Amino acid sequence: MTQKILVLPGDGIGPEITAQASRILAACQARGLDIEIDEGLLGGAAYDVHGEPLPAETLEKAKAARGILLGAVGGPKWDKIEDLAKRPEKGLLGVRKQLGLFGNLRPAITYPQLASASSLKPELVAGLDIMIVRELTGGIYFGQPRGIEERDGERVGFNTYIYTESEIERIGRVAFEMAQKRGKKLCSVDKANVLEVTILWREVMERLAPEYPDVELSHMYVDNAAMQLVRAPKQFDVVVTGNMFGDILSDAAAMLTGSIGMLPSASLNESGQGMYEPCHGSAPDIAGQGIANPLATILSVAMMLRYSLDAPALAQRIEDAVGKVLDDGLRTADIASEGTRTVSTAEMGDAVLAAF
Amino acid sequence: MTQKILVLPGDGIGPEITAQASRILAACQARGLDIEIDEGLLGGAAYDVHGEPLPAETLEKAKAARGILLGAVGGPKWDKIEDLAKRPEKGLLGVRKQLGLFGNLRPAITYPQLASASSLKPELVAGLDIMIVRELTGGIYFGQPRGIEERDGERVGFNTYIYTESEIERIGRVAFEMAQKRGKKLCSVDKANVLEVTILWREVMERLAPEYPDVELSHMYVDNAAMQLVRAPKQFDVVVTGNMFGDILSDAAAMLTGSIGMLPSASLNESGQGMYEPCHGSAPDIAGQGIANPLATILSVAMMLRYSLDAPALAQRIEDAVGKVLDDGLRTADIASEGTRTVSTAEMGDAVLAAF
Ligand SMILES: CC(C)[C@H](C(=O)O)[C@@H](O)C(=O)O
Ligand SMILES: CC(C)[C@H](C(=O)O)[C@@H](O)C(=O)O
Repeated sequence: MTQKILVLPGDGIGPEITAQASRILAACQARGLDIEIDEGLLGGAAYDVHGEPLPAETLEKAKAARGILLGAVGGPKWDKIEDLAKRPEKGLLGVRKQLGLFGNLRPAITYPQLASASSLKPELVAGLDIMIVRELTGGIYFGQPRGIEERDGERVGFNTYIYTESEIERIGRVAFEMAQKRGKKLCSVDKANVLEVTILWREVMERLAPEYPDVELSHMYVDNAAMQLVRAPKQFDVVVTGNMFGDILSDAAAMLTGSIGMLPSASLNESGQGMYEPCHGSAPDIAGQGIANPLATILSVAMMLRYSLDAPALAQRIEDAVGKVLDDGLRTADIASEGTRTVSTAEMGDAVLAAF
Repeated sequence: MTQKILVLPGDGIGPEITAQASRILAACQARGLDIEIDEGLLGGAAYDVHGEPLPAETLEKAKAARGILLGAVGGPKWDKIEDLAKRPEKGLLGVRKQLGLFGNLRPAITYPQLASASSLKPELVAGLDIMIVRELTGGIYFGQPRGIEERDGERVGFNTYIYTESEIERIGRVAFEMAQKRGKKLCSVDKANVLEVTILWREVMERLAPEYPDVELSHMYVDNAAMQLVRAPKQFDVVVTGNMFGDILSDAAAMLTGSIGMLPSASLNESGQGMYEPCHGSAPDIAGQGIANPLATILSVAMMLRYSLDAPALAQRIEDAVGKVLDDGLRTADIASEGTRTVSTAEMGDAVLAAF
């Protein structure tokens, strides 16, 4: 059966990098992958046309798609929009929520060819391979009540950090299963010494543990986790945490690999439908110059093939092609170093395609 | 007028490190500082004796003290206490709240003698000097409603992230004034693209900015701040943020200096009354061995002299003494490296005292 793929270029460098990733998708098609590719507007790009970051048409296409490839959303151009509901980011959050993409997989891997690009000492990051499992449709991102209102003569801003047992259990299972397939270590990150919601989080993780006897479960407070990531990141295998902590820790982890321009991510729901996007953002400062790194987006296609399209062999070929291109010394400006050849976004796409 | 000082050794390595810092306090007294030193129980140590982490007697003494020197609280021994209100951490939070210690100053400094101890490349951290200003008596740490309860047949955990305009303004002014005394750059960290409470935060910071025309105010999302700290920490001068983000970012920043065993902190209220404590925790794994690093606690005394006791000259003498001891090559185990001499907690105290 033909599977639908939706490409959402988004804002900033989004269109440039998804253009290269789309070429890889087309090449997969040419190799027999039975997909149908469509495009849509999300974020600031959608706001500019429709006055809202997630138009009904895009949502409809997204719901019908098995896999969604997103570039990135947001930029200073839309930061001044008064109504938070109209900002580009809300388009992204809307897709996550509407499609129930609760399971966010954020690998933090150091590519051997790029270890020296890390701000950490090479021995601390060489061979680093962490998988951060972030809950993506709950927590303080979506909790009610929320808002800004007048109380006792002054304005008050408030949000609600909330999780139900079943939400925690659902993401917990994703993380335990991921740990089973990897190094069999799971670290759950919370702030159970202060926040009740994370006491429940910890309890549920403890309750699930006996069902996964081959996985060693540990707990860490979020402040300590931030420190340990900086101090000795290789101590981690799989990390599971809520939406807000996951946002912070996964970005810190991605950055310390030195390979942030290379890192894909997946956001999955229970039926394996998923949205795939690079970990880096929309980088408005370099948008339109043709110098952005398309590799994280190309590797997001590989993740899509693996997690939503059940085509692991093609996924592996893409990953191998990217490895080969790096071995050949090709680099976009963000990952360039002495002795490598700096190429444009399109040239990088050409090279991966040639190696594919 | 004689000023009261309260020493709260707390748990884990707390008693060992405060013992050394108390010797420095006594030496200040001998040099004419008009103080009266008392001791009290806080955290697990208080729970073990009184069944609660913040006994009334301790709170009373704390209220009467101009400066409080805290070791650290918490440890696995008390992690299983069912009632969150009885855990050691709640004793600490209680002192902060009851005394209104809303302004938490957390310097992240790389000591030149220790630059090589950082997990970051030396050139990224050499000369690093950030001041993180964390709001300490509001935000999600204290927000109501909070709890775990049954809803629709399952348990739900929830906390409230809440700030009033006046709470934001108060900490904002501390941060702007700090920036005026330093590098004149202030970065306010929020998640204004998702959380309403931090939209208000950003607005208030913007409103204050014209009153401090010599300070350059910028804003950064918390996920990006976590990345930028890892990537290029020297871009920051003063950082201001809420309680939860401040907890995470200040620990990450402290760790990346490589000098975490050296970093003091201050928690102040509007009248300059303050609690001073090392940034590192209670380190239960090495408690009682006499090997803990007392320098962060000794430097916390220096901060107390500066911010609560108006004795900057004595503060400087302590800081110089610590510098000299490091120059002489003395190190506790946590900061030892090739070519240095490893000493015990007490020997380190001896050495600082001798250099004072
Ligand atoms: C753009 C923003 C809303 C989003 C988030 O905070 O989830 C981004 O930072 C991410 O991590 O995907
Ligand atoms: C012990 C804990 C409650 C505390 C906090 O989270 O504030 C600690 O981590 C700190 O940063 O002082």
